[in-house]
Amino acid sequence: MEERKLRMGMIGGGIGSFIGAIHRIAANMDGQIELVCGALSSREKVAKESGKLLFLPEGRIYSSYEEMILGESKLSADERMDFVSIVTPNFAHFAPAMLALENGFHVAIDKPITFSLDEAEKLKDKVEETGLKLLLTYTYAGYPMVKQAREIIKNGQLGNIRKIYVEYIQGWLNQPSEKEGNAQAAWRTDPKKSGPSGCMGDIGTHAINLAEYVSGLETTELCAMLNTVVEGRQLDDDGMVLLKFNNGATGMLAATQIAAGEENNLTLRIYGEKGGLEWHQMEPNTLIVKWADKPAEILRAGSGNIGLYPIASNNCRTPAGHPEGYLEAFANHYRNFILDIRGEDLNGEKPDYPSVDEGIHGMAFIENVIRSHQAQQKWTKFTT
Amino acid sequence: MEERKLRMGMIGGGIGSFIGAIHRIAANMDGQIELVCGALSSREKVAKESGKLLFLPEGRIYSSYEEMILGESKLSADERMDFVSIVTPNFAHFAPAMLALENGFHVAIDKPITFSLDEAEKLKDKVEETGLKLLLTYTYAGYPMVKQAREIIKNGQLGNIRKIYVEYIQGWLNQPSEKEGNAQAAWRTDPKKSGPSGCMGDIGTHAINLAEYVSGLETTELCAMLNTVVEGRQLDDDGMVLLKFNNGATGMLAATQIAAGEENNLTLRIYGEKGGLEWHQMEPNTLIVKWADKPAEILRAGSGNIGLYPIASNNCRTPAGHPEGYLEAFANHYRNFILDIRGEDLNGEKPDYPSVDEGIHGMAFIENVIRSHQAQQKWTKFTT
Amino acid sequence: MEERKLRMGMIGGGIGSFIGAIHRIAANMDGQIELVCGALSSREKVAKESGKLLFLPEGRIYSSYEEMILGESKLSADERMDFVSIVTPNFAHFAPAMLALENGFHVAIDKPITFSLDEAEKLKDKVEETGLKLLLTYTYAGYPMVKQAREIIKNGQLGNIRKIYVEYIQGWLNQPSEKEGNAQAAWRTDPKKSGPSGCMGDIGTHAINLAEYVSGLETTELCAMLNTVVEGRQLDDDGMVLLKFNNGATGMLAATQIAAGEENNLTLRIYGEKGGLEWHQMEPNTLIVKWADKPAEILRAGSGNIGLYPIASNNCRTPAGHPEGYLEAFANHYRNFILDIRGEDLNGEKPDYPSVDEGIHGMAFIENVIRSHQAQQKWTKFTT
Amino acid sequence: MEERKLRMGMIGGGIGSFIGAIHRIAANMDGQIELVCGALSSREKVAKESGKLLFLPEGRIYSSYEEMILGESKLSADERMDFVSIVTPNFAHFAPAMLALENGFHVAIDKPITFSLDEAEKLKDKVEETGLKLLLTYTYAGYPMVKQAREIIKNGQLGNIRKIYVEYIQGWLNQPSEKEGNAQAAWRTDPKKSGPSGCMGDIGTHAINLAEYVSGLETTELCAMLNTVVEGRQLDDDGMVLLKFNNGATGMLAATQIAAGEENNLTLRIYGEKGGLEWHQMEPNTLIVKWADKPAEILRAGSGNIGLYPIASNNCRTPAGHPEGYLEAFANHYRNFILDIRGEDLNGEKPDYPSVDEGIHGMAFIENVIRSHQAQQKWTKFTT
Repeated sequence: MEERKLRMGMIGGGIGSFIGAIHRIAANMDGQIELVCGALSSREKVAKESGKLLFLPEGRIYSSYEEMILGESKLSADERMDFVSIVTPNFAHFAPAMLALENGFHVAIDKPITFSLDEAEKLKDKVEETGLKLLLTYTYAGYPMVKQAREIIKNGQLGNIRKIYVEYIQGWLNQPSEKEGNAQAAWRTDPKKSGPSGCMGDIGTHAINLAEYVSGLETTELCAMLNTVVEGRQLDDDGMVLLKFNNGATGMLAATQIAAGEENNLTLRIYGEKGGLEWHQMEPNTLIVKWADKPAEILRAGSGNIGLYPIASNNCRTPAGHPEGYLEAFANHYRNFILDIRGEDLNGEKPDYPSVDEGIHGMAFIENVIRSHQAQQKWTKFTT
Repeated sequence: MEERKLRMGMIGGGIGSFIGAIHRIAANMDGQIELVCGALSSREKVAKESGKLLFLPEGRIYSSYEEMILGESKLSADERMDFVSIVTPNFAHFAPAMLALENGFHVAIDKPITFSLDEAEKLKDKVEETGLKLLLTYTYAGYPMVKQAREIIKNGQLGNIRKIYVEYIQGWLNQPSEKEGNAQAAWRTDPKKSGPSGCMGDIGTHAINLAEYVSGLETTELCAMLNTVVEGRQLDDDGMVLLKFNNGATGMLAATQIAAGEENNLTLRIYGEKGGLEWHQMEPNTLIVKWADKPAEILRAGSGNIGLYPIASNNCRTPAGHPEGYLEAFANHYRNFILDIRGEDLNGEKPDYPSVDEGIHGMAFIENVIRSHQAQQKWTKFTT
Repeated sequence: MEERKLRMGMIGGGIGSFIGAIHRIAANMDGQIELVCGALSSREKVAKESGKLLFLPEGRIYSSYEEMILGESKLSADERMDFVSIVTPNFAHFAPAMLALENGFHVAIDKPITFSLDEAEKLKDKVEETGLKLLLTYTYAGYPMVKQAREIIKNGQLGNIRKIYVEYIQGWLNQPSEKEGNAQAAWRTDPKKSGPSGCMGDIGTHAINLAEYVSGLETTELCAMLNTVVEGRQLDDDGMVLLKFNNGATGMLAATQIAAGEENNLTLRIYGEKGGLEWHQMEPNTLIVKWADKPAEILRAGSGNIGLYPIASNNCRTPAGHPEGYLEAFANHYRNFILDIRGEDLNGEKPDYPSVDEGIHGMAFIENVIRSHQAQQKWTKFTT
Repeated sequence: MEERKLRMGMIGGGIGSFIGAIHRIAANMDGQIELVCGALSSREKVAKESGKLLFLPEGRIYSSYEEMILGESKLSADERMDFVSIVTPNFAHFAPAMLALENGFHVAIDKPITFSLDEAEKLKDKVEETGLKLLLTYTYAGYPMVKQAREIIKNGQLGNIRKIYVEYIQGWLNQPSEKEGNAQAAWRTDPKKSGPSGCMGDIGTHAINLAEYVSGLETTELCAMLNTVVEGRQLDDDGMVLLKFNNGATGMLAATQIAAGEENNLTLRIYGEKGGLEWHQMEPNTLIVKWADKPAEILRAGSGNIGLYPIASNNCRTPAGHPEGYLEAFANHYRNFILDIRGEDLNGEKPDYPSVDEGIHGMAFIENVIRSHQAQQKWTKFTT
């Protein structure tokens, strides 16, 4: 592939969007991607204004994703976008993703991948059919110390895994803010836009992705309870799940959005025969590794830092002690995604980012949790 | 009551006992209790040697608890012991406790109160019949910041409680150390000495006691899973429980002894409508209180410290920044217990310590967890 | 000013440069700046290769800063760069900065501003003469919680300031790595490239800038000691300074690069009559505020987060709990700098970034520290 | 020596005394010491009431230390006290200590040892002359992780020591509380009772003792500044010292009592060629060891805990994760002191506790700091 920046078109993410801004920062950061066009809002005026604020040329500020995808298709190869980034609410992921793939564009999508498991499977088929790349932004797998944790386990340093505790504790929905003008809250608590689950779909999926990504294990059975704590809310805002994994390990998953006073407290702890590890998203540059037979160690992010596996080190931009955060984790996904599009590696490592399989698994997780929640029996087999 | 030290006799706690030494330090600390006699081991030689090391007069080093209780009964009122402290393994709690009560002695017992719920209920009847005092050392309720947490909730500062996460994570049984000469491990994993549950009885009971003590709530239903992770072990060494409480709140309880690398990591988090609180036993002098509408606060132990309720402040011995710990929490129970025996208060506060009701509840918890574990249905009603 | 991205040219920062990459990420992040040209290395081949990797058009990869500044001057207004970013070693800051200003370009410079105080003062004159903007990247003043700390003090919340402790503790120069091929170490320990001070110039200047920026105070006297701990090194790698400030407060400044095992541990604590505050660069999203008469508070970064002053909130890109770090602090400087160039504000706040005055003060600090270090008497008046 | 508890008499420590209660708890804790007599206050009524509250027999509640020492001398060997514990304000340490030694009693004294260096030296002569034991309660050297830190350095694990940072930051004197009825504040800020220095004598001496105890180094030169921050106060309430040590290492010592909002924040960091260590008194069970060439380690207190030297492990009473604190550190001094009186060791280790040499050094430190503070020249040689 010719050496140039890759060209991104964005669907959704206009004025007022939280996650759209995050995706743009992540894409901008390394100077390898340029935003060339957008269908930034379903409201034409907002789309125009948003595009202008992003310095898009007028001709490439589109009013709809169809218009954008078809319009870009007609441009010459050295002008048209290379991939789309879809940052709309969940219900509006599938259609633009399919259309983009059908027209030869790679796709980045904010999680969860689609509105339903069925859609996710269709998308997977299309990806396989076209050979195009798909990035699904399960953000937290982008952190270097999460990759380090995964390598520690993959290399057997903890021995056979026995126990996983994962929790994602937020407080921002502890009041019915969806009725008080909070747009983020509004769509996330609306089953028509968000899907059949609120909290479990929004953040429980992150939690299970993190647990399985790091441990390398798969959930085989689960026992779930979903709650709607804030009165009048239509979807779950709290949930808890007991887990059995394919190697016999067990685990607990907590996800809540009503823990008043909490921010974005995603924590993972995994224990094996020889030791355990602990990672907190809110202090993401530290990974504590505890050992049965020697003192605990503090592993720290930083390019070239001692004690890190190459994949962790390579996913850092700064030396130790210069903290990186959420935006850099996000940017790691974009960087790995475009390396993969280019057919390149990251200092000898295969680009590592979540894609359709993780997306399907997340959708299946939501469906299985709901099924278990509704069941009387304790354990529900995990099916896909 | 005449102003003098109270006289303690100890049952169990001879050479090699961990918990016996802890009880003695706790009883000694405030200079209000003197150890006057002991039946420190069922092995006569060990009993003698242990008594000598503790400077007991020869005539009051007894060979059995029966001998001690009956022997002390015959001494004059200004010589005989006031109470017994029972620090034997679980199966040997009930008989000496009953005999002591029948002979007019107050009783301190290490938790869990007895071997079975049935025994616990008989003990309760006897306590009520005699009017004597019973201390059950659920240690963690003795910490000042735990008492502070309870007061915060009792005073409505967090609003209605919605969610409780409690976990007690240890790693010391991650290998089959009961087969390698570890005496602590041996009796705790032996159903004849420990009772029908290992981990859940040993530390799960601490966790539920802490959660209910602080929240003021009662468990109404639960969904439990017990695991024996280390091969060949006879009792559970790991467990997890979903909880429903009497006000509609829900919760999760984790208890494990196989989390390699963990020490004694008991953590409680409780969230209400207005905020939440977080306490870690391993840094017990700090209580974080998080608020929905203002910055989080760091409350700190210390006699007379700002922001503390009197009951928390009164259960401190040192000013802020001079850390107290596990032994002082333990000593708080003894101090409150003897104040109650004396009919006194703690600076105007009613002496606060766990007793038979907490003991019965703990035994019931074990039985209900086992019942739920064995059940196919998800939820089991909590019965006593 | 027309709505478009601002165009940046970079001087220095070719392959292998740490700080050049940092500046580019910081400039890229918000999608408001595009890199259009560069004189990226004094070695022509490296300059070419570096420019190609950054996708610069061939015609705008220059071989020297003179060539670039003069070349860009001749381009049309809608093509030529708007500002230069100078990321060369200290000795090569002054000349390109002067030439850029003389040719009408705004200037961003990595700190310290120049090689000597004399150069810094000339630069200031030129800035004032031209009315152009100059950004000096004292990174740490870009952190939102540092700005929050400054506002807390400015608003009198701590009362009169009495004591400042600032420390910048690194370990990366604990061995003579400048002799073992470490390029970063090589120029920083070479007086010809770095200036008359090593550690104190490199990181002590950050520390004093942070202390004075947050406190609003000025150093009036100081008592310094510089050390060269690693044998054979030409410049100081460790230093300590006692400080007197213009309101009567006193302080201590520690700067070291030989604290084996430390990363980039910059910590600030300031105490006033009513309370104190504490900030750690390695956990930059938290600011602890301690009060004489109420519990300590944990303030947390996050756009729109409770308890933050607007200037702190506006310098966040993510909501609370989505950690930002060093690169975002750096990017805040660039964002404020270009807002100032455009004559705009940041949500109603005047753009806030370090400039020539801070640069001169830093150079004066180095000179005063050296003078005090060489003096026999305890206190040296701070002169500029 | 016959196997029995050692008998303690207390001088000072009556109702309202903070440190008297601490000494009694420390002496009680291990059941090896009994309080048998006291001259608890210079006010007879308070002495009587205080003695009664401590259950002392009437005949052994004395009105003055002379009366007590002479009275106890006349008792039979199997009744009279073995040692005195002196917990009066500084000015009243010397006379009772001398009298006790002259009458054959061992002596425990709260720090600083005396009112002046001259007194301290006389006390040392008397100790040497009599062969009796003297305990000086520099509390912080009693913590197990402080002893661990000392062993790490003594065993060369950090290599040659290069840098020491020690700080003791309190806030309790940030207002003129000595004028508002605070008895602790009143004597500590009164030169007649406290000596020539306030803050530096009270807590600076702890800091230097800790630094030298752990590092094994001796101060050779210093550069000090003392401040009286709170208006109208007679003694220093804040101070800072630059230090040179006998191996060429340098250091900084901060001591303050006006850091509003701080509790009892004593922190030590020491760096050598190979790594560094960090200990915080307010979280005393953790010692972080940082390494130049491998990840940092978290060492944790606990009897028998992995990674501990025997002397650290033996000075623990509980297993890992059951936090010990200030009172246990204090109790360690008493335990080591009475082992030494008995001619015994602590599991094979020589009893380790501060004594007259540390006392003299502390007094010399105060005098040298004052001398340096008053000097114009930067460095003052440390003399004794």
